[in-house]
Amino acid sequence: MAPEMRFFSDNAAAACPEALAALSEANRLDTAYDGDEWSQRLNSAFSALFERDVEAFWVSTGTAANSLALAALCPPHGSIVCHREAHIQNDECGAPEFYTGGAKLLIGEGEGAKLTPATVEALLATIRPDVHQVQPAVLSITNASEYGCVYTPAETEALGDLAKKRGLRFHLDGARFANAVASLGCTPADLSWRAGVDALSFGFTKNGALAAEALILFDPALGAATHYRRKRGGHLLSKGRYLAAQILAMLEGDVWLRNARAANDSATRLASAAGAERLLFPVEANEVFVRVSVEEAAALRTRGFDFYDWGPGEARFVTSWDSDPAEVDALAAAIRAL
Amino acid sequence: MAPEMRFFSDNAAAACPEALAALSEANRLDTAYDGDEWSQRLNSAFSALFERDVEAFWVSTGTAANSLALAALCPPHGSIVCHREAHIQNDECGAPEFYTGGAKLLIGEGEGAKLTPATVEALLATIRPDVHQVQPAVLSITNASEYGCVYTPAETEALGDLAKKRGLRFHLDGARFANAVASLGCTPADLSWRAGVDALSFGFTKNGALAAEALILFDPALGAATHYRRKRGGHLLSKGRYLAAQILAMLEGDVWLRNARAANDSATRLASAAGAERLLFPVEANEVFVRVSVEEAAALRTRGFDFYDWGPGEARFVTSWDSDPAEVDALAAAIRAL
Amino acid sequence: MAPEMRFFSDNAAAACPEALAALSEANRLDTAYDGDEWSQRLNSAFSALFERDVEAFWVSTGTAANSLALAALCPPHGSIVCHREAHIQNDECGAPEFYTGGAKLLIGEGEGAKLTPATVEALLATIRPDVHQVQPAVLSITNASEYGCVYTPAETEALGDLAKKRGLRFHLDGARFANAVASLGCTPADLSWRAGVDALSFGFTKNGALAAEALILFDPALGAATHYRRKRGGHLLSKGRYLAAQILAMLEGDVWLRNARAANDSATRLASAAGAERLLFPVEANEVFVRVSVEEAAALRTRGFDFYDWGPGEARFVTSWDSDPAEVDALAAAIRAL
Amino acid sequence: MAPEMRFFSDNAAAACPEALAALSEANRLDTAYDGDEWSQRLNSAFSALFERDVEAFWVSTGTAANSLALAALCPPHGSIVCHREAHIQNDECGAPEFYTGGAKLLIGEGEGAKLTPATVEALLATIRPDVHQVQPAVLSITNASEYGCVYTPAETEALGDLAKKRGLRFHLDGARFANAVASLGCTPADLSWRAGVDALSFGFTKNGALAAEALILFDPALGAATHYRRKRGGHLLSKGRYLAAQILAMLEGDVWLRNARAANDSATRLASAAGAERLLFPVEANEVFVRVSVEEAAALRTRGFDFYDWGPGEARFVTSWDSDPAEVDALAAAIRAL
Repeated sequence: MAPEMRFFSDNAAAACPEALAALSEANRLDTAYDGDEWSQRLNSAFSALFERDVEAFWVSTGTAANSLALAALCPPHGSIVCHREAHIQNDECGAPEFYTGGAKLLIGEGEGAKLTPATVEALLATIRPDVHQVQPAVLSITNASEYGCVYTPAETEALGDLAKKRGLRFHLDGARFANAVASLGCTPADLSWRAGVDALSFGFTKNGALAAEALILFDPALGAATHYRRKRGGHLLSKGRYLAAQILAMLEGDVWLRNARAANDSATRLASAAGAERLLFPVEANEVFVRVSVEEAAALRTRGFDFYDWGPGEARFVTSWDSDPAEVDALAAAIRAL
Repeated sequence: MAPEMRFFSDNAAAACPEALAALSEANRLDTAYDGDEWSQRLNSAFSALFERDVEAFWVSTGTAANSLALAALCPPHGSIVCHREAHIQNDECGAPEFYTGGAKLLIGEGEGAKLTPATVEALLATIRPDVHQVQPAVLSITNASEYGCVYTPAETEALGDLAKKRGLRFHLDGARFANAVASLGCTPADLSWRAGVDALSFGFTKNGALAAEALILFDPALGAATHYRRKRGGHLLSKGRYLAAQILAMLEGDVWLRNARAANDSATRLASAAGAERLLFPVEANEVFVRVSVEEAAALRTRGFDFYDWGPGEARFVTSWDSDPAEVDALAAAIRAL
Repeated sequence: MAPEMRFFSDNAAAACPEALAALSEANRLDTAYDGDEWSQRLNSAFSALFERDVEAFWVSTGTAANSLALAALCPPHGSIVCHREAHIQNDECGAPEFYTGGAKLLIGEGEGAKLTPATVEALLATIRPDVHQVQPAVLSITNASEYGCVYTPAETEALGDLAKKRGLRFHLDGARFANAVASLGCTPADLSWRAGVDALSFGFTKNGALAAEALILFDPALGAATHYRRKRGGHLLSKGRYLAAQILAMLEGDVWLRNARAANDSATRLASAAGAERLLFPVEANEVFVRVSVEEAAALRTRGFDFYDWGPGEARFVTSWDSDPAEVDALAAAIRAL
Repeated sequence: MAPEMRFFSDNAAAACPEALAALSEANRLDTAYDGDEWSQRLNSAFSALFERDVEAFWVSTGTAANSLALAALCPPHGSIVCHREAHIQNDECGAPEFYTGGAKLLIGEGEGAKLTPATVEALLATIRPDVHQVQPAVLSITNASEYGCVYTPAETEALGDLAKKRGLRFHLDGARFANAVASLGCTPADLSWRAGVDALSFGFTKNGALAAEALILFDPALGAATHYRRKRGGHLLSKGRYLAAQILAMLEGDVWLRNARAANDSATRLASAAGAERLLFPVEANEVFVRVSVEEAAALRTRGFDFYDWGPGEARFVTSWDSDPAEVDALAAAIRAL
């Protein structure tokens, strides 16, 4: 019997009505390869959102957005500082290494899958500044993090300042950037370029698109080569208007924020039910990591809840923009009752 | 004023109703990354179509399909024999070089953008079999070719035999494979593995999908690494079911053939109107290359026809699955009247 | 004032007379690129030494030997298990990533810069066997290790067995392989292919050559592609006979063993002087890591001894084939007197 | 019976006494990796030779020098304009593609393996300035060319001007740069940076070194990354002093010019003997391409002359710094007698 109530991940949810409707609206002949009216509007739509000129690229996957960003920022003989739990380290099968031409990832630790200036400094101190070692070139963080924690604008800026001081470029994996912005109530600008971010992978897929991610470059010098890299990676779609249209539809009327808030709210309800004792990390976005015994996990599954076993005695529940309130309430009750 | 009647390319057309409807049907939570019910059906659907076991991968672009195929077939120190007009040489910004890790393309000539055993042999003869030269490893052809010509099963098999004899793997860029099959009235098997093809990029985007291509591997040994390469290239979508569903919808009821026939028929009407004298190549698929003077080209544009200037005195008209019969008739009449 | 007595590294020592003499002997016109009489004798000379057929390649650097070996063993989407202190991780500026096309290094810990089956198993257990993670493909160890410790034949074989069981290829970085063999009194075969090693970087430069390393392949299937990779990496010298001749001269009469024994003996004398208390690691080859205070280190330098500060309160002394006995005695006395 | 008089190539000749002697002089402990006294003098020695500040790197092969130069000048998504007979296209097994991360070579034609502004312009005109095609980034020429012809300073400058105008960087493969300088009687500066060259592979191996090539960068911005690339390619030798010392020994007293003149003179004698009718190309360096029938070639071989069959009815004779005057005279007489 297939589980009926799924809290496995937000990466397999249905698309929101606005995204789907956008496909129908875009379903007419237009110019290929960025030449269509939707793609042509991307830069200005994102520039408005970020309160400054930006260059935006649509791609199909977060892996592509991250890899193209890192390739723009890191030479083949450089390294990318990131957390051990970072998606780019753990879940992209070496895409950053592939796109950069063989850069290394320099792995740090930290609570909640977050880096701090101190942990980054400690990592940098392990590298001799000589030609025998790959030299750090990029700092990459994920917001919201892989453990559902957020970096505040101040935390981001502290890392941005460190990056600048140490000559590193700054990448933000924002597969759940919307969740972070919604959680913090700040502006997208505060959480990105104002804090020193050079390139942002802005995720829409986990937040209600069919498959659409935006790579946002805040440094105009990075754009020219990225056009070629995207094409060369096979990520320039002839009918890219279907991606651009999804993104635009989610920007209009702040659908992206509405969706992220809904997902966050569901997670908050689960967190309240679990109680601080059971939570592995503070719940600041749409992921809830809960301590459960093997028996408790089994009991939850028996009741029809599907989720990921994170480690021994740990379960991960992910909510999404369309999490059914009744299912969330049912899961909250079941967790409370453990 | 934007042109009203566009014969620029088939790569920007609208999607067919079946493909669009498939998205709505697939718009519900399912397992991510090939785990969904649509992706799970791909292999068997294509195996049925090809009358043997195959392994199929959905990707978003033809460039991705071609590059993953070539990376599976060619070592970094190998070369890929292809025509000077091949898409992999001319239109993918070095994606084959990127995905293979720096292989070379060995460029041949030939009428209609087609290679023959003789031209391939001549090319191979230019390479010394020593360690100082990149050694030919793959033969890649495009069917229908970039000039809208088709390789018959016999022609394909002759090249497949040569490839086998010379130790080359055989790749088929089938961005317009449907048009070739429709034109020849043969089976997909006859035009691929029965003729010695190891890997096929089977295009759906130009033929009515929003953005969906299938990489078909006929050699089971190639599959395992390709899964990693696809992920690593950023081409494994979490919600890949939206791609798989489009493809399945176009396989069911032979929508792919219906669409291709429609495009071919439109091209044939244009070819008849142009007459043999004006045609640069025989029209065997959905592309029509016509000799026109500068004045004639301008006159056609004044009447609202949009198309590509191929070279001095040459125009390219491409029809698609949804070419409007009235527009085709209008263009045919206009060409006839030149 | 430049230091007069240098124990900095064995990688900058003079060449031994046999190596230098070999250059003069080889200084006459012969065929280029492996075709000369010295290069032609390499395979059989190493086959005799290893008591089985092997394929040998001369290159100029250990980085080249290691990288070519790893490229032969690891796909771009694989990872290489190695120690945190491994030269391939720490001192080759990403050459393994470059030559493999972007593989990852999977970093383990362990006393004396040595891996054990347990630490390797623990590392492997961190990798999910799915397409989202780079999968382990190679186990690489260094013998003698970066801390001057040796793997015995039994230890090597235990790792070789594990590698085989887990589907990993087995690489041995033998920049100081001679020192390990000399220390253990075993045969080269016992410490390599009999223990499961697939590819060995056999160092001669640190052991008395001007610049010559041998890449030894024990798996005949690896040879063909390696010829192309070597050329493509710029490591096939036209006058490679000068490298081959050095290596042959050092194999003849077991010069390589004589040199390694001399270096090891000097290190043993230093170790005795230091005493077990001061030693960071057992001294099993030609490197001596000693606990010294800042003042003690300064005092040694004042007396004219040059060495590497390894970490706070740690000094590294490396002996070489030509360490001056008087200088070794002087250093031993100085250490004893601390 | 092995041929006794070899005119096969200059890449397998003996080393000149100065180079060999330099090895003995450098045969004492010094600092590793560019830290030694010889390596430290390279930049100033070449700066003096070129009458301006340059940055110089020693490497073991011309392939390495060329590839590092091209990697410094060309992005992975760029292309390198070169002649069909260029060593980088024909004889380096894809090393440029490997080191650049997958750039393409854009192949031109021209008499004597030389490019002209007109042929380069014609090539550039074949490339559409769009994201679908790899864009030209570098112009690379070989002087003396693969057919033993030279580019004059004026010819070089014309190409340099074109490169600048078209936004291309300019690379000079100088495997036989010494022969070109000797032939033209100009300064090294006139034939390189004064004519717009950004990076020069300055060959010593073919001109009397054991194995030593210098990569000369005229643009200071290219140096930093090249240090990492050289290390990463495995081309930073720990005892690089043996390479640096050879080069310095050949710069001192203009040994490099003396050697090149000797080789050129021998070739000139052969050319005179052959007569203009038989020569495929003007003999301007140390290579002589001669029209010979199959019977004539056999006759020459019977007399003990070894050479390369270039094509049907064509033979290549290469002289070197140490060509035996008696053998040259014998060959000249034999050719004259044909």
